[in-house]
Amino acid sequence: MSSTSIRILLTALGLSVAGGALANSVSPEDQIKYRKAGYSFMAWNMGKIKAMTVDAPASFNKDQVLNSARAIAAIANSGMGALYSPESAQAVGDQKTRVKPEFFEQPDEVRKLAIDFNKAANELARVAQGGKINAIKAQLGKTGETCKACHDKFRQK
Amino acid sequence: MSSTSIRILLTALGLSVAGGALANSVSPEDQIKYRKAGYSFMAWNMGKIKAMTVDAPASFNKDQVLNSARAIAAIANSGMGALYSPESAQAVGDQKTRVKPEFFEQPDEVRKLAIDFNKAANELARVAQGGKINAIKAQLGKTGETCKACHDKFRQK
Repeated sequence: MSSTSIRILLTALGLSVAGGALANSVSPEDQIKYRKAGYSFMAWNMGKIKAMTVDAPASFNKDQVLNSARAIAAIANSGMGALYSPESAQAVGDQKTRVKPEFFEQPDEVRKLAIDFNKAANELARVAQGGKINAIKAQLGKTGETCKACHDKFRQK
Repeated sequence: MSSTSIRILLTALGLSVAGGALANSVSPEDQIKYRKAGYSFMAWNMGKIKAMTVDAPASFNKDQVLNSARAIAAIANSGMGALYSPESAQAVGDQKTRVKPEFFEQPDEVRKLAIDFNKAANELARVAQGGKINAIKAQLGKTGETCKACHDKFRQK
């Protein structure tokens, strides 16, 4: 395992553990709000990278792709595990959630999928730094697969 | 002006300009959704840094503060100017917005406040790398002031 992989692994695990302590200061309603915000903002940036590498490659702009990839990676590295206390498993106040109950019952599987996503997102930022459109496109696809793996397993349709 | 300042300036301006082209592919409703998501996710991370440097400094964790600061900076660098087309000036579909009409009438002032915020957020990430709690706390305050400057001028109460 490379030092980068170890760092990512420790980040994912460390923040997940530390998340428990911090989560207490964020209400379940805000946990849902903030985690949806994170996914939503990543989706916008995934869409921009897709637009510039797949749908309209003539519009490819290395700096914009890199900034989008860095936003995705930084959000992935920000410890969103703290936003999933058991109290946030169902709609609270104004906030709805599509998370399945199984998410809270299968922490090992969640951790595995979270690490897969975290690695892919950080690799996307690394590849974006290189500025090669085909490599970015390929890694975007791989990153999207790690999103989908979690959606398929733990998100309601 | 340092090369870093120039880079940040160009990023802020460049993305603002380029944003016009990209914005067309994102509906006004989604522009509101995505920009609110970005601010919301930054607010969560500002809150985490505040918790670890101001409210409960005994809980200070350099890596968590750094990851939060990096998330804020990466979101600040991601070209959110693209999410403010004139069609997104008022509520659309399910999305409400508190942006004032003046935001769309004072582009020079918006650009100035955006650059102030962008510089402060990138400086926060730089200071967080150093791991000194008092320096981080000071720069968190400065960053918060740049948020407030825009809220005071362009956000409805």
